[in-house]
Amino acid sequence: MNAELQINRGRLLDRLDRLAEIGAIEDGGCCRLALSDEDRAGRDLLVSWMRELGMVVRIDAIGNVVGIRAGLENVMPVMTGSHIDTVRTGGRYDGNLGVLAGLEIVAVLNEAGLVTRRPLAVAFFSNEEGARFAPDMMGSLVYAGGLALEDALATVGIDGSSVGDNLQRIGYAGDAPCGWLRPHAFLELHVEQGPVLEREGFDIGAVEGVQGISWSEFTITGMSNHAGTTPMSMRHDAGYVAAATGTFLRELVKETGPSQLATLGHLQLAPNLVNVIPNRALFTVDLRNIDEAALQQAEQRLFAFVETLAAVEGVTVNHRLLARFEPVAFDRELVGRVEAAARAQGYRVRRLPSGAGHDAQMMARLAPTAMIFVPSVGGISHNVREYTAPEHLEAGANLLLNLLLELAA
Amino acid sequence: MNAELQINRGRLLDRLDRLAEIGAIEDGGCCRLALSDEDRAGRDLLVSWMRELGMVVRIDAIGNVVGIRAGLENVMPVMTGSHIDTVRTGGRYDGNLGVLAGLEIVAVLNEAGLVTRRPLAVAFFSNEEGARFAPDMMGSLVYAGGLALEDALATVGIDGSSVGDNLQRIGYAGDAPCGWLRPHAFLELHVEQGPVLEREGFDIGAVEGVQGISWSEFTITGMSNHAGTTPMSMRHDAGYVAAATGTFLRELVKETGPSQLATLGHLQLAPNLVNVIPNRALFTVDLRNIDEAALQQAEQRLFAFVETLAAVEGVTVNHRLLARFEPVAFDRELVGRVEAAARAQGYRVRRLPSGAGHDAQMMARLAPTAMIFVPSVGGISHNVREYTAPEHLEAGANLLLNLLLELAA
Repeated sequence: MNAELQINRGRLLDRLDRLAEIGAIEDGGCCRLALSDEDRAGRDLLVSWMRELGMVVRIDAIGNVVGIRAGLENVMPVMTGSHIDTVRTGGRYDGNLGVLAGLEIVAVLNEAGLVTRRPLAVAFFSNEEGARFAPDMMGSLVYAGGLALEDALATVGIDGSSVGDNLQRIGYAGDAPCGWLRPHAFLELHVEQGPVLEREGFDIGAVEGVQGISWSEFTITGMSNHAGTTPMSMRHDAGYVAAATGTFLRELVKETGPSQLATLGHLQLAPNLVNVIPNRALFTVDLRNIDEAALQQAEQRLFAFVETLAAVEGVTVNHRLLARFEPVAFDRELVGRVEAAARAQGYRVRRLPSGAGHDAQMMARLAPTAMIFVPSVGGISHNVREYTAPEHLEAGANLLLNLLLELAA
Repeated sequence: MNAELQINRGRLLDRLDRLAEIGAIEDGGCCRLALSDEDRAGRDLLVSWMRELGMVVRIDAIGNVVGIRAGLENVMPVMTGSHIDTVRTGGRYDGNLGVLAGLEIVAVLNEAGLVTRRPLAVAFFSNEEGARFAPDMMGSLVYAGGLALEDALATVGIDGSSVGDNLQRIGYAGDAPCGWLRPHAFLELHVEQGPVLEREGFDIGAVEGVQGISWSEFTITGMSNHAGTTPMSMRHDAGYVAAATGTFLRELVKETGPSQLATLGHLQLAPNLVNVIPNRALFTVDLRNIDEAALQQAEQRLFAFVETLAAVEGVTVNHRLLARFEPVAFDRELVGRVEAAARAQGYRVRRLPSGAGHDAQMMARLAPTAMIFVPSVGGISHNVREYTAPEHLEAGANLLLNLLLELAA
């Protein structure tokens, strides 16, 4: 432990501000969609900062950028990092904090003239948000070997252009093989993006893992007919099945238990007219649970509900799984270290799962991994109103500093 | 009664076919949106037929067209008619049948050399469907004095142009004052647009009245947040309120009674993403009942449900009444005549309410009014698959012929 070493809050905030100027939108928000011109400008700024800090910068074939600060020994490095791409109406902390805290820590060590035994690596991964190209967490997924490079490069985004072409265009199709640097441990600092820490008065979250995710798309096909002339008993109302499913989700959550989340976020009716019984309803259900068995139970209950209701209503169901990730459990020992170090530094800390996906869950395939969360005011995320108080940004970065020193010793 | 007079089925079908060629779409359907070029072509054809039949044609300021066949006396005419505009994916019977049956009856009387005591008038009213300009039944509503002409002319449609400009463009801004010709009685023949007659094996419906209609638009405003990080208890989910309302409608129908209909036909969520809790839901509810007190009860139950649920969910509700028509009861004696004449002609007849709106409900403000329904196969309406068997078209037209002769005697 190096209790005397502290990050420089002002410098960290300044870097957050300067990065947020790139792709700035209203109310302090950011729009730096992955592999856009704004993303390139953000990348260029970060690479210049890495070089100013004396780091060796390598870029891999999917555009992940890793800056390395040499250690005393040529062994596997301790790695930290996150992402700097944003959603269309993003804030300035999501992702950026984890990367810039890494650079701040390197700056502190440089000033202190302290060289760790293991090298330190600070990474930012391509297209974590998935707002332009699906899937999200693409760069870390390819890094961890979970998605073939050629498939990732061929991915076509919402504007019709491919990942590969955009990487070439912005000059970030690097020459390093993906996954070239296997870390000794990976630790990611991130804003919570949820309300739990703030609501319960904690400074730090020791993230135990990432919830499993199940995304379903249901297409219900019934029969369109006149709302004024069709008796209720003769209807085959696709919209009713969608509505009843949305209502059922609250019941499902009660049945499955308190760790279950369920959301109907997307719904489209056709013909979508006030006086026509819908013949088609397309809707999605997002189910999340930290427990895989419970998540499977929720899925089965949901599918059975929709099928049964559709049979009664006389409509057909087409079901498609849009995404399915099992829960990821972070390294038990490392999570314990995060919790213990936070407590030792005097922070109010609690363990919690992450509801959102993170690059760390991909890196967990390669190395012992954990995450540090700091509070998000109001739990507001993917929104220009995203906010984390400076003292919490500082707390998270100081905790990361101490843990990296511990792990690199 | 003139039991020996019969309409000419082949000629009626031929006119239906020839009108359906104008604005023809796939599978025998029609698209003649009100005041479009196709509507103009259909109008021109009908006016030419009226003139061929020796009728005097007058066009009023909202584009309603009335053809008159003189009677023995210069008294109030007996009027029949309907509309020839269609929805975007309309059939060939809705509206058209009522107008063309009127012309067929004039043709039969011309051939028989029979002149009625009262004049006969055959009308087609502008923009009954409301598919391009709201409200629907516009022409007959203006005719009956329920909507000011200048307001109707100023109405802007889905393509941004006004009723007045389009009437000028297609040459149907006539010089007759709206409502210039007050009928002695009004009788409209129309396809049922519902499944009741076919399902129960009737040839003719004696329409007792038109259901009351209540169209509500609800805008629910909650808070958008991350589907993975927001505990269920902290959500303000606008989409949930919409879904629960859609589910509640079935319960509402059970409570209010068998004549109640309820439909959630239009729904839009924002931001409408799989992993974001909707912060906004805009949806419509279409309530119909033949009984005004029951309709009011259903409205009150619905509004109370949405308000209470919104308060519990912590979202706000904005409610707007899009349309509200009280039920219309047709003339008791005239409905009785329709039923009696149908029975006398050997048709299986039942009384029933109309679920859809019709020009007749506006004309009921001016004169004793009733309607004759013929079966719609499968109850399919506003759809290219709309179909009524030739024997039912003929039955309806023959019944109309007999009733017009009775009324004009």
